[in-house]
Amino acid sequence: MDVFERLKLAAEVDWRSYVEHKFVQQLGEGTLPQEAFRAYLVQDYLFLIQFSRAWALAAYKSRTIPEIRAAQAGLAGILDETELHVRLCGRWGLSPEQLHSVQEHQATVAYTRFVLDCGAAGDLLDLHVALAPCVIGYAEIGKALAPQGVEALGDHPYREWIGEYAGEAFQQLAIGSRKLLDDLAARSMTERRFGELAILFGKAARLEADFWQMGLDAVAG
Amino acid sequence: MDVFERLKLAAEVDWRSYVEHKFVQQLGEGTLPQEAFRAYLVQDYLFLIQFSRAWALAAYKSRTIPEIRAAQAGLAGILDETELHVRLCGRWGLSPEQLHSVQEHQATVAYTRFVLDCGAAGDLLDLHVALAPCVIGYAEIGKALAPQGVEALGDHPYREWIGEYAGEAFQQLAIGSRKLLDDLAARSMTERRFGELAILFGKAARLEADFWQMGLDAVAG
Amino acid sequence: MDVFERLKLAAEVDWRSYVEHKFVQQLGEGTLPQEAFRAYLVQDYLFLIQFSRAWALAAYKSRTIPEIRAAQAGLAGILDETELHVRLCGRWGLSPEQLHSVQEHQATVAYTRFVLDCGAAGDLLDLHVALAPCVIGYAEIGKALAPQGVEALGDHPYREWIGEYAGEAFQQLAIGSRKLLDDLAARSMTERRFGELAILFGKAARLEADFWQMGLDAVAG
Amino acid sequence: MDVFERLKLAAEVDWRSYVEHKFVQQLGEGTLPQEAFRAYLVQDYLFLIQFSRAWALAAYKSRTIPEIRAAQAGLAGILDETELHVRLCGRWGLSPEQLHSVQEHQATVAYTRFVLDCGAAGDLLDLHVALAPCVIGYAEIGKALAPQGVEALGDHPYREWIGEYAGEAFQQLAIGSRKLLDDLAARSMTERRFGELAILFGKAARLEADFWQMGLDAVAG
Repeated sequence: MDVFERLKLAAEVDWRSYVEHKFVQQLGEGTLPQEAFRAYLVQDYLFLIQFSRAWALAAYKSRTIPEIRAAQAGLAGILDETELHVRLCGRWGLSPEQLHSVQEHQATVAYTRFVLDCGAAGDLLDLHVALAPCVIGYAEIGKALAPQGVEALGDHPYREWIGEYAGEAFQQLAIGSRKLLDDLAARSMTERRFGELAILFGKAARLEADFWQMGLDAVAG
Repeated sequence: MDVFERLKLAAEVDWRSYVEHKFVQQLGEGTLPQEAFRAYLVQDYLFLIQFSRAWALAAYKSRTIPEIRAAQAGLAGILDETELHVRLCGRWGLSPEQLHSVQEHQATVAYTRFVLDCGAAGDLLDLHVALAPCVIGYAEIGKALAPQGVEALGDHPYREWIGEYAGEAFQQLAIGSRKLLDDLAARSMTERRFGELAILFGKAARLEADFWQMGLDAVAG
Repeated sequence: MDVFERLKLAAEVDWRSYVEHKFVQQLGEGTLPQEAFRAYLVQDYLFLIQFSRAWALAAYKSRTIPEIRAAQAGLAGILDETELHVRLCGRWGLSPEQLHSVQEHQATVAYTRFVLDCGAAGDLLDLHVALAPCVIGYAEIGKALAPQGVEALGDHPYREWIGEYAGEAFQQLAIGSRKLLDDLAARSMTERRFGELAILFGKAARLEADFWQMGLDAVAG
Repeated sequence: MDVFERLKLAAEVDWRSYVEHKFVQQLGEGTLPQEAFRAYLVQDYLFLIQFSRAWALAAYKSRTIPEIRAAQAGLAGILDETELHVRLCGRWGLSPEQLHSVQEHQATVAYTRFVLDCGAAGDLLDLHVALAPCVIGYAEIGKALAPQGVEALGDHPYREWIGEYAGEAFQQLAIGSRKLLDDLAARSMTERRFGELAILFGKAARLEADFWQMGLDAVAG
């Protein structure tokens, strides 16, 4: 059992509140109101800006050229993803101008700044555990929503989104992240610390669940 | 007009959403449900922990002994306040054990980590502008809720809370914070930057308003 | 007069102690002992590792996608430069294994950690002012050592090194850095702060001069 | 064997180059030139300013009230020590004005910023391991220089300095620091990480040795 598996098990209730959230279920069934999805998409763009800062923080906190290089690749990857995101938003009728005029929602501020603070105050392991629900969690969700593969989704309204996270590239990214957690843990995780990391991980998962909820609330409100 | 006055004016809508929030009004009228107040008190305790870290960050970011000493005094002051807070919570039936077993609410995470990130990524001026709604805002609210002084509050159910922030010690603290903003601005605020700081200030005020709302939601929910 | 020109003028003695250092003069005249150059080269490699962390710090401290992207490009550029450096070291008889087994000299620790601390404790302007002697100074030195262009250097023993910094690519980089200083100053530099930045800049220039001296001391010692 | 003992053993050569440095020997024998001691004292004052920032950083990086409180006490202690230092300098003919007009020596910049960067980029264990040569090392040196106690030093010219570090208060501080290292290690030190920490510790010890050397060089130069 790798570190990620152990974290998931230790924070099972929080983890399930996130990966099995009503937003995810409706997204998978294709019944999610488009307005909820759009509200989510816009905030996710603002989220990516802070997320790229988290990868830059990882590069700053690294000690060796290979570590810095890996974090730099992560940062470059996120910057590319934001461009894809602008295009995806465009197809949902959201212009770049709209994206930049929207204010960050409390849920966006909470999760992103929590991750950044874990990284600034802690070490690389704290940072990557706080990021794990996002990187590894999205891969897990993507896979679960496309059990027969992306092709089988047909004309699913959220096919593009599911395809991105179910796709091979993102799945490989998540595998790399799991290995990184194991490496960092081999360096600086004792069993006593595991308990603290599991609390941190559970909190991050809850903040991700709140992020989905924000999408649903945009319709209900 | 000092920098704080200018910030308030530039972010007037956000500022009023915070200092004139329904929670504040009900607290002033004494009609605030005790359950809402208790929900707020507990989270405010968790808030103070992060807030003390923000003062430590200010000390770390300082360059001279007088600056470090001033931030250290702020940090020591907050640590004393947390003890008072534990006693205040006690009188509202909340034991230290309860305080430490409660999870941080999204609203608490959002405002505290936002402040810490402003300070970590920016400079001391960014940090103190992000803190201003809390330090200077609470002084303003305290004063507004005790227009004839604390004595005139009689047996107001929230007399103790109002008294703390309307009291001379906290009012002086707020005056010091306003002067500090002016000093920092004289060093590193151009008019172009003022616009950015006003946005940051407005965002912090909104996050404070969300914090009050959390108290009300605890009853409604 | 741009900000960089003003800083140079305000810290003229320190600046000249750096750009007109005996190491630089001997390097230009081709009389620098190869042992001194090799001692410098190895430490410069260790310097680049920390320097790349400084660019990562700049990305972390940025607020907008274009700012993050610019810092990320800087980081990627430094990582490429370290590879060139390994090859350059190879031609001077220094294997990658040797490079990695060498300990950081006090002079390397002093300048690199000073820059990183300026950036961590201050804002982006502090960081880029601390970096300026390196980025912009090397461009100035390169140009001064190849007054008739790189071709005219013939079989100069340090032609490759001079060519790198006198070359168009590095000169453009320095021009970009000067513009960035002006932009950051327009945002957050008052005249009062200029004095502080000039002190910081002078200190960084002295630490760079100490870095050259380390090369000379390797022979004298 | 506690963590500190293990670190000392693993970095024995570096450690001895520091605690048995010629400066220390001459200081113990009372033969150290007063000029060397004064050069050291002034830089040690500038050192303490940065050192207090390191304790503030520890408070910022803490997670719980007791941790923050302990770091705050450390910070307050250093601020008191700087006042004592001003008085000690006064007795050696150095006015506060002189203290503040002196520039930081390369050796001062190197060790202080190295410690601060270890703390900013790493976790609390990295920070405290980097600080250990200073806190625990000075206690060890003080004790070694007063083997029969401070009273037995008679009219030793450096009696006051030795007395401070051989004294009960400082010895207790060092004992506390050793326990803190053990606590932090129980949380986040695996055997793999121990090797990295020993390298960090050895580097910090060498930078401390360079700091003594700076005092001697002030006379030789």
